[in-house]
Amino acid sequence: MVEDCIASLSKLISHMPGLGPKSARRIVSFILKSDEKYTADLIRLITDAKEKIHPCSVCGMWTEDEICPICSDPDRERDRILIVENSDDILSIESCKIYDGLYHVLGGRISPITGVYPENLNIDKLKERIDEKTTELIIATNPNEEGDITAEYIKKMFVSRGIKISRLASGIQSGSNIEFASQRAIISSIINRKDC
Amino acid sequence: MVEDCIASLSKLISHMPGLGPKSARRIVSFILKSDEKYTADLIRLITDAKEKIHPCSVCGMWTEDEICPICSDPDRERDRILIVENSDDILSIESCKIYDGLYHVLGGRISPITGVYPENLNIDKLKERIDEKTTELIIATNPNEEGDITAEYIKKMFVSRGIKISRLASGIQSGSNIEFASQRAIISSIINRKDC
Repeated sequence: MVEDCIASLSKLISHMPGLGPKSARRIVSFILKSDEKYTADLIRLITDAKEKIHPCSVCGMWTEDEICPICSDPDRERDRILIVENSDDILSIESCKIYDGLYHVLGGRISPITGVYPENLNIDKLKERIDEKTTELIIATNPNEEGDITAEYIKKMFVSRGIKISRLASGIQSGSNIEFASQRAIISSIINRKDC
Repeated sequence: MVEDCIASLSKLISHMPGLGPKSARRIVSFILKSDEKYTADLIRLITDAKEKIHPCSVCGMWTEDEICPICSDPDRERDRILIVENSDDILSIESCKIYDGLYHVLGGRISPITGVYPENLNIDKLKERIDEKTTELIIATNPNEEGDITAEYIKKMFVSRGIKISRLASGIQSGSNIEFASQRAIISSIINRKDC
């Protein structure tokens, strides 16, 4: 049945972030109308991405290699680690060209309501990475309630290690997401980052 | 390069309706994080849809058969044809259970600005379909400027055939799209459809 096929595809697409049943349906119509090349490219790129891309074994950022280009770049400052929720946050921050240290991707934030606890985040690897060269951890979790809880948890975990711990300043509008912030807001938040 | 793969996939997804570069990026992240089953299902359903679904040879609605279930349903009233821009509009109207005639899908609307002219729409088949049994054409193009132009074009084309021509009443909020309208607004617009 045509309706079953369209309905199943719509349902699957509606699970994607920011999409509901009606916007998913419009996307299915768009796919049905698109030329063969578009669909072939879409399927090939999804397949490629899933096959080739995985988290960096050091920082957790998406990469095709064992270690990502930032972790393996000898020109990056290795004494500071900026901690983000997701890889996309790194792309937004890198586009500002104001930070030249390392990163660490948590893969989310503490959110008991959706079943995400500290043990579900990439925190153990962060513990392993920190050594005598590390002088600062910059916490860049999103400036909302769950991001605050996650920042507080990380601060408590490492405060006894004698490392400077800071968090991005609230130049980023409270309640929003880093990946959607303007470059100006991101630059201001890095310059004005405060100890915590 | 991982960035090339993610950027290419993001770009392709950003062409989908309602999505921009950042929302496309979020969807790529979602796909990267999703389990293998989700991606396999997504690819299988896209492939199935593109292989099996095509426009009905009578009305232009998406179907797996030569003729869609509505056109081949002996219980539908065959004296009236409701003309929509897209198949999705039919789903919204059918869900209201207030109309039991036939449909005709134009596949868009006249829009010189995006290069869509009457000859690009499924109008020739509409001409062929209309016979002595046809008593009414109900025009259900979206209530906006391009939908108005398209409605006017169809009216002029068929007014000399002695058929009643009506258009959905403006119970649907002006400037919006039928597929996103509430059932109440759709029902009101069908009941109050007016001659034109």
